[in-house]
Amino acid sequence: MSLINRLDTRSPEFRAQLTALLAFEAGEDAAIERTVADILTDVRTRGDAAVLEYTRRFDRHQPADITALEIPRSEWLAALDALPAAQRDALEAAAARIRSYHEHQRAETWTYTEADGTVLGQKVTPLDRVGLYVPGGKAAYPSSLLMNAIPAKVAGVQEIVMVTPTPDGTRNQMVLAAAAIAGVDRAIAIGGAQGVAALAYGTATIPAVDKIVGPGNAFVAAAKRRVYGTVGIDMIAGPSEILVICDGHTPADWIAMDLFSQAEHDELAQAILLCPDADYLAEVESSIARLLPTMPRADIIRTSLANRGALIQVRDLDEACEIANNIAAEHLEISTREPERWADKIRHAGAIFMGRYSSESLGDYCAGPNHVLPTSRTARFSSPLGVYDFQKRSSLIQVSAQGAQTLGKLAAELAYGEGLAAHARSAEYRLDTGADATTTDSTAVSTDTSRT
Amino acid sequence: MSLINRLDTRSPEFRAQLTALLAFEAGEDAAIERTVADILTDVRTRGDAAVLEYTRRFDRHQPADITALEIPRSEWLAALDALPAAQRDALEAAAARIRSYHEHQRAETWTYTEADGTVLGQKVTPLDRVGLYVPGGKAAYPSSLLMNAIPAKVAGVQEIVMVTPTPDGTRNQMVLAAAAIAGVDRAIAIGGAQGVAALAYGTATIPAVDKIVGPGNAFVAAAKRRVYGTVGIDMIAGPSEILVICDGHTPADWIAMDLFSQAEHDELAQAILLCPDADYLAEVESSIARLLPTMPRADIIRTSLANRGALIQVRDLDEACEIANNIAAEHLEISTREPERWADKIRHAGAIFMGRYSSESLGDYCAGPNHVLPTSRTARFSSPLGVYDFQKRSSLIQVSAQGAQTLGKLAAELAYGEGLAAHARSAEYRLDTGADATTTDSTAVSTDTSRT
Repeated sequence: MSLINRLDTRSPEFRAQLTALLAFEAGEDAAIERTVADILTDVRTRGDAAVLEYTRRFDRHQPADITALEIPRSEWLAALDALPAAQRDALEAAAARIRSYHEHQRAETWTYTEADGTVLGQKVTPLDRVGLYVPGGKAAYPSSLLMNAIPAKVAGVQEIVMVTPTPDGTRNQMVLAAAAIAGVDRAIAIGGAQGVAALAYGTATIPAVDKIVGPGNAFVAAAKRRVYGTVGIDMIAGPSEILVICDGHTPADWIAMDLFSQAEHDELAQAILLCPDADYLAEVESSIARLLPTMPRADIIRTSLANRGALIQVRDLDEACEIANNIAAEHLEISTREPERWADKIRHAGAIFMGRYSSESLGDYCAGPNHVLPTSRTARFSSPLGVYDFQKRSSLIQVSAQGAQTLGKLAAELAYGEGLAAHARSAEYRLDTGADATTTDSTAVSTDTSRT
Repeated sequence: MSLINRLDTRSPEFRAQLTALLAFEAGEDAAIERTVADILTDVRTRGDAAVLEYTRRFDRHQPADITALEIPRSEWLAALDALPAAQRDALEAAAARIRSYHEHQRAETWTYTEADGTVLGQKVTPLDRVGLYVPGGKAAYPSSLLMNAIPAKVAGVQEIVMVTPTPDGTRNQMVLAAAAIAGVDRAIAIGGAQGVAALAYGTATIPAVDKIVGPGNAFVAAAKRRVYGTVGIDMIAGPSEILVICDGHTPADWIAMDLFSQAEHDELAQAILLCPDADYLAEVESSIARLLPTMPRADIIRTSLANRGALIQVRDLDEACEIANNIAAEHLEISTREPERWADKIRHAGAIFMGRYSSESLGDYCAGPNHVLPTSRTARFSSPLGVYDFQKRSSLIQVSAQGAQTLGKLAAELAYGEGLAAHARSAEYRLDTGADATTTDSTAVSTDTSRT
């Protein structure tokens, strides 16, 4: 097996090779689906009792009762105090930058008034209550907690309820510290499909939320998919991806390490480099070979690069941009001179890292933008997690007495055309010429106190 | 069976009664799910041949080949020319108002520059290509076509591909005329799960799209749910709902007809009135009794009101607003004096119609805001269809050489804390103090042409 795949856009097989490389089918596991469906029904029906039973079984610890699963704020604050100063400072600095960036995303209510006095617009409001899923054990990333919770708070969400499994009763102190920094409101030591179910349906002790966000394993993902509609959910993420466009003048080690930083997440993660310079690609391959043995997660990186990674020689950077638009990668690094020139040509990417200094890892932690990004080509139609995911809009329609004359005639014409007579007559009642023939109280209009 | 349910918030059973009234479970039909799964796989594998076969079978007509299913633009323009002038004028006026309203929703790219030269922001781009599902037969509403297509065009979507089934080969002329007005780019006479599959996966003659919007039957809804992830989809709508808050001073016939205008859609549609005045509620009930026999769709309205409709006496308008926030209705009419006062208290609703003249039917057709709205309490976390559904965002991160020093240290601290060494080292390479110990080409930094 080679270290990493080598492709060339000039090869007649290139398109087929690229398609094969990108192919990833999430696939449904029937056993997981059945288990999750049962757990959801059970929690919906039996509430706290079911949550407690599943937690005892799956997380292997024995809370006395459901209230013992609430993690009190004093415990988060203690975790925060116990953090080494450098780590705490870094988390707080990252949180401040994330908050500051996301404040640019807050949408505001708007209206406009037409000549006849009719007012139209949209009212923007935050969601009332959001559920935040935080994985337990080793996959618990405090940075991920910040990225999910802070946009909700910036949006104005009143209450964030965090659930996180505590396998064998172990509570992740970094996660609790991050929860305190991010402004989470409640933390409950439950996870899995039972945690999602409790948030979606509510129980006697756990309040039902309006939306559930945050990463999780296959059970959590299946549960989120199933409760969608009852509550909102964020995107179900696929394996992480980085695509680097390089002009061949960034230190090869930098680019090799950038590819590693994606590959170290997961054997299924995908790291691809596009460059017009064959010598440079060879140089990066040498860097990979030399640096790989020094990495703590070398095995994961090796598998990821061999199966899903690629160094692709392109004709030029224009072609690289075309390919990038087709791949619609989660992370796109444009490691070139004048990166703006190439960024202008990019239509589809979760995040665009411009210039040689913008390594993806800076964006993962502290640049400010969200690291929850669309994967698996979904950047063609979706966006990074943001404040807009925790706000929603209500149309505002305040038709003036005068406006109702024009609009009423229009609406009636169209409604009759669609065979919807009640729609038409409801509009016609508001016409000054009187309501339609069946109306007996045409004088009633004059009792309308709002009409002046 | 009574004409319409009567509830009173002072009754001890009120909460339970309201919950029962609102309960609606979409429910999955296993037979539909299986059929749809098979059709999707078949179209994905066999492309046009499968699309053609299903169309012949389900739509009962015999196109010569797949190209015969393309509805040429000349045919839409002929349909537009054949429209009665009043109808055409009304459609065009409605389209202009919808366009003008939605132009307020267009988001723009933004960036800001930090003191050290680091640039952060978000690039906003339209989706490339959108699929628009338009039901065939009697449920084909030209107004719905305008509401789905115009926001996409305002967003800047390059190509809208419409699919619409033509049962027995009959092409709905109103729909074709509306397609011409709305700026649809292609129209193909296919529907059902096979239509959704063709749009999601693409075939030799039908291009794959990035998102599919528009209403459809249970097969279409199931197909959309299943292709979600491959493409984006809009919300799967439940039965339509109207909630009216009235102070008892709007002509009772107006309110009765407003309730009818929702109930006439569907036996499952829901129409509810909240009012503190018992006499007024009785008056509206009389209006319902008197007006109902005059309605062309009286049977549908009668079933809807008897099963799912309600006149609810509330203590006061404050309580009405609380209940409205709990119901989170698709359409909320505030038919009172000073409607702004009550609208300010509303947090959850698809659209808010303010004042006695703002009948829901005006919003359905021509006020300007979208009539595709969140149903079944999903207004707690989602929004009307809008331009924002056809735009997406890419984070922009351009870290300056100086910015990389601060951010690099932060990111490295957090990455090591999470056990992700490649992330840390990728950040450390960008530090002036040189990369970490394993780097052999610390001089390479000086070859970085972007660093000045």
